[in-house]
Amino acid sequence: MRDVAVVGVGMTRFGELWEKSLRDLYVEAALSAIENSGVDRIDSMIIGCMTSGLFVGQEHLGSIMADYLGIKHLPASRVESACASGGLAFRHAFIEVASGMSDIVMAGGVEKMTDISGDGATYALATAADQEYEVFHGATFPGLYALIAVAHMEKYGTTRDMLAAVAVKNHDNGSMNPNAQYPFKITMDMVKSSVMVADPLRILDCSPITDGAAAVILTTVDIAKKLGKAYIKVTGSGHATDAIALHSRDDLTTIAAATAAADKALKMAGKTIKDIDFAEVHDCFTIAEIAVTESVGIFEPGKGGEAVLKGETALDGSFPINTSGGLKSKGHPVGATGVAQIVEVYKQLTGSAENGRQLKNNPKVGMAQNMGGSGGSSLVHILEVA
Amino acid sequence: MRDVAVVGVGMTRFGELWEKSLRDLYVEAALSAIENSGVDRIDSMIIGCMTSGLFVGQEHLGSIMADYLGIKHLPASRVESACASGGLAFRHAFIEVASGMSDIVMAGGVEKMTDISGDGATYALATAADQEYEVFHGATFPGLYALIAVAHMEKYGTTRDMLAAVAVKNHDNGSMNPNAQYPFKITMDMVKSSVMVADPLRILDCSPITDGAAAVILTTVDIAKKLGKAYIKVTGSGHATDAIALHSRDDLTTIAAATAAADKALKMAGKTIKDIDFAEVHDCFTIAEIAVTESVGIFEPGKGGEAVLKGETALDGSFPINTSGGLKSKGHPVGATGVAQIVEVYKQLTGSAENGRQLKNNPKVGMAQNMGGSGGSSLVHILEVA
Repeated sequence: MRDVAVVGVGMTRFGELWEKSLRDLYVEAALSAIENSGVDRIDSMIIGCMTSGLFVGQEHLGSIMADYLGIKHLPASRVESACASGGLAFRHAFIEVASGMSDIVMAGGVEKMTDISGDGATYALATAADQEYEVFHGATFPGLYALIAVAHMEKYGTTRDMLAAVAVKNHDNGSMNPNAQYPFKITMDMVKSSVMVADPLRILDCSPITDGAAAVILTTVDIAKKLGKAYIKVTGSGHATDAIALHSRDDLTTIAAATAAADKALKMAGKTIKDIDFAEVHDCFTIAEIAVTESVGIFEPGKGGEAVLKGETALDGSFPINTSGGLKSKGHPVGATGVAQIVEVYKQLTGSAENGRQLKNNPKVGMAQNMGGSGGSSLVHILEVA
Repeated sequence: MRDVAVVGVGMTRFGELWEKSLRDLYVEAALSAIENSGVDRIDSMIIGCMTSGLFVGQEHLGSIMADYLGIKHLPASRVESACASGGLAFRHAFIEVASGMSDIVMAGGVEKMTDISGDGATYALATAADQEYEVFHGATFPGLYALIAVAHMEKYGTTRDMLAAVAVKNHDNGSMNPNAQYPFKITMDMVKSSVMVADPLRILDCSPITDGAAAVILTTVDIAKKLGKAYIKVTGSGHATDAIALHSRDDLTTIAAATAAADKALKMAGKTIKDIDFAEVHDCFTIAEIAVTESVGIFEPGKGGEAVLKGETALDGSFPINTSGGLKSKGHPVGATGVAQIVEVYKQLTGSAENGRQLKNNPKVGMAQNMGGSGGSSLVHILEVA
């Protein structure tokens, strides 16, 4: 396999973008990534998108996005793994460059979530759970993650304050991200007094419904050197699935797919979790960030909540988590999220994170962990300074 | 890139399978392929499916199918390119094996189309066209292909009889396929007097709504040799897109994405179209088969219809097309179709096609051409006797 680099990134602002369509969003991010990287062509494109069919009645994204980018006959694929679709796009772009099939590949992600009416978004997102054994019976994602939260609290004594601290920390970081949907700070009291969604999760424990897109350019390290712009290396890629339905999991408090994906990615990179300087992780709900940081080995099982409360995952902590603001503050256009995580890791590793959220400790190795459904799939990537 | 082989295939019967769900269908085909190939594991799985979100409210297919196959933590991806989703799954499985990322990869395809009520299937399929510029204004696929048919008739003098001959020939072949949805012969008069759908296309010019799944196992040629079972080589893979909307195409009578994909696949295989012995092509409508056989170079532009009428594409013709019965007779579960094409090419090249449809001329090289939408994307693969 050839050595692979990320040579440029782009993304739209995340938010309720009424004036922009699915294709507008994708093309904006894609052109931004092409310009940022300095490449004069792409050979292939992999698009992560969860469910544009349900959100806006449009499938066949490879065709429509290549068409609207104006790149005739471009091989363009759409991949889907629920909210991990972006991470999956990145992995397939990585494999395609590593294989020698293509030299310059764009990995993009997009979701247009605010055009659907009523409770349509809740139904569309629920297709990431087991339709026949969960959704049909009334379970949707806030409820499923609430079950995980209750189990975590029961088993480990995780507290309401620990959950709230995740949201407060991510809004602190997101307040410095010009692309964030909610670029403002919140307080512990605001989280704890916000409206209840699914006990114990309140609205400020939940990531929002978001429109947005992100794109990154992957190529060989050899080509990256010739481009003469900042680039980082992709040294590990891990992908794993788990039972889609919560009732089939061995343990509700662990995201086993994240553990398996992280183990594979770290092994491929020749690293352990102690070699990682910071991570973007999938905080679709506050409990998810805690469970994931434990599942990938950053903290011991049951110690993730305490670590947040102590500030260990803050920008100036021992292991910064979600410097971008995470899904919570930056927003969560589901198919774009995994790619936007790579955008943030690229920025941190190239020293270009905006508005004071650049890590001060000269980070060398970052991790991006993306997750589908209630943990039915996970993608983990390890990225390093060149 | 490593040399890649197909070492085993499996598929369900195609049809209106009321008693089988999306996951039932996929798992049946997958287990059949695993058994047929003699592998004792798979390292990864790529699933082609167009729009299970709209058809049955289920996305996140990587997770649910790995789960129901009982393979813990399997990396499993879903890919989508409308009706070319199966061909796209095969391509990504090919790239993954060729890259060295995985040694044994399943490419599967599935669609459960008959559980949706009313005109839901027509709407779901229309998401492969341009939602904003075609579908919103009332265009669905029979109408779009009717435009192609009218243009072809105007430009080349293609006749009603030529279209009908495609359907009759494919039903002749499909009558010998035990997995076909419509395994019976039809006559020219039956096609020409069947109910009008979109002038000039009648119901017997159209492929049906189908439930079904197919799967194939890809591995390295080195591993294939050790398995000791029949295998074939994958020597060419081509993928291209084109404008998603008909009004943006240079020429309505040509499928430019198929031309571009075939050119790439043939170049990779070091072959010309004259080296190909037979092909499975995407006959979603009778006019599609004629346009595709011309677009990939089997016949000169405007000569495809005449060739069918003369029997050149029949089982005993000079260039047999759709020996399986094609989408018309075998059925068209959209995400599965591209993989089912590979199943047929594998059977023909290993001499195992059932019930008298085995080609007699000892074929050495086959082509599979899969198409999305009205030609917005196409996948072409070249497969050869080992």
